[in-house]
Amino acid sequence: MRISELSDATGVPVATLKYYLREGLLPSGRAVNARSADYDDVHVERVRLIRALVESAGLPLADVRKVTAALDDPPDTWHELLGHAQYALPATQPDTGAGSTAAARELVDSLGWRVGDEAPALRDLGSALAAAASAGLELPAEDLAAFAAAMHDVARVDLAGVPTGSPAAALRRVVLGTVLVDPLLLALRRLAQEDVSSRGAGRIAGGT
Amino acid sequence: MRISELSDATGVPVATLKYYLREGLLPSGRAVNARSADYDDVHVERVRLIRALVESAGLPLADVRKVTAALDDPPDTWHELLGHAQYALPATQPDTGAGSTAAARELVDSLGWRVGDEAPALRDLGSALAAAASAGLELPAEDLAAFAAAMHDVARVDLAGVPTGSPAAALRRVVLGTVLVDPLLLALRRLAQEDVSSRGAGRIAGGT
Repeated sequence: MRISELSDATGVPVATLKYYLREGLLPSGRAVNARSADYDDVHVERVRLIRALVESAGLPLADVRKVTAALDDPPDTWHELLGHAQYALPATQPDTGAGSTAAARELVDSLGWRVGDEAPALRDLGSALAAAASAGLELPAEDLAAFAAAMHDVARVDLAGVPTGSPAAALRRVVLGTVLVDPLLLALRRLAQEDVSSRGAGRIAGGT
Repeated sequence: MRISELSDATGVPVATLKYYLREGLLPSGRAVNARSADYDDVHVERVRLIRALVESAGLPLADVRKVTAALDDPPDTWHELLGHAQYALPATQPDTGAGSTAAARELVDSLGWRVGDEAPALRDLGSALAAAASAGLELPAEDLAAFAAAMHDVARVDLAGVPTGSPAAALRRVVLGTVLVDPLLLALRRLAQEDVSSRGAGRIAGGT
């Protein structure tokens, strides 16, 4: 297809597509003549991935480039490929410097999870544990284990939804499935709290 | 205890405590004489709740006042009381105006959850569903049901952790347990994804 058709297929303006080509985010099409090139479904999937990274995940172009570079020089396994997308995503927690990954590592090891030391979410988890401790919120080990089990259930659904045909489509699914489902999970958590509370809570006795 | 002791017990400066008194967030102490008043554990719990609302949840004072007002004129049941804290928390999702609570209501009803129509998380859930649809992220009903079941597991742990002695301490736990555990859950989700991916994913065959 021509670049105008690539624009139609993706909903991205031709000028933006040319910008992606110049920046090396989108591979060149097959040259047809001096003035035009031919694009295919690989380009369509790549553009959709770039849009997901820019629009939904809010990544700066430098981070988008890290993800597309993994497609240009793909690793051996799907696991490594998906990691390139997940590790590029924004942190879930502001890094206050108070957290340590040691506590996070300890928790992850106690769960028997296989997680690399360089996982950005280890730092996020460390910061979250430190913020809870600093505010005086007690989180017993059995509560943390229950939270982890629930999120492992979520992760199994997440991974089952990743298509295995096109690497670009797989990365796009990881990105969208992570950043767009995060707020959905948090909303469901609040609604579930209301449901649980409505079934269990009694009358208030005594003062405030 | 005197106001200086209330300050020591809570780590909040006397000037800030006096500000809370003037703003009506903190009830007056029992007058001892024209210049001083006596404070007790109810005041300690109230100050801790106010700090949690301001520091951890980042609420403006007007919203803090709505929560403390529920303590000054408590409802009949714990369920209603806890709702005053949860409903005051910041939205989990920017309101783009694109979402509708109808889709959220339908999902919650299909789960059999007891949730009031005025629950702010219904709007958050509607926005999240609309954002996913708009980005082309397909979320089959069985995936949504699995996410909901996982968050219901989380919510049961959340509610079990709420103390039933002091209403102020209960509200503080709801606030801290919700806003500080949110990022912890999202970090665990990413780490669980890595674990699941490491166990299931094979080699990449074919092009990008």
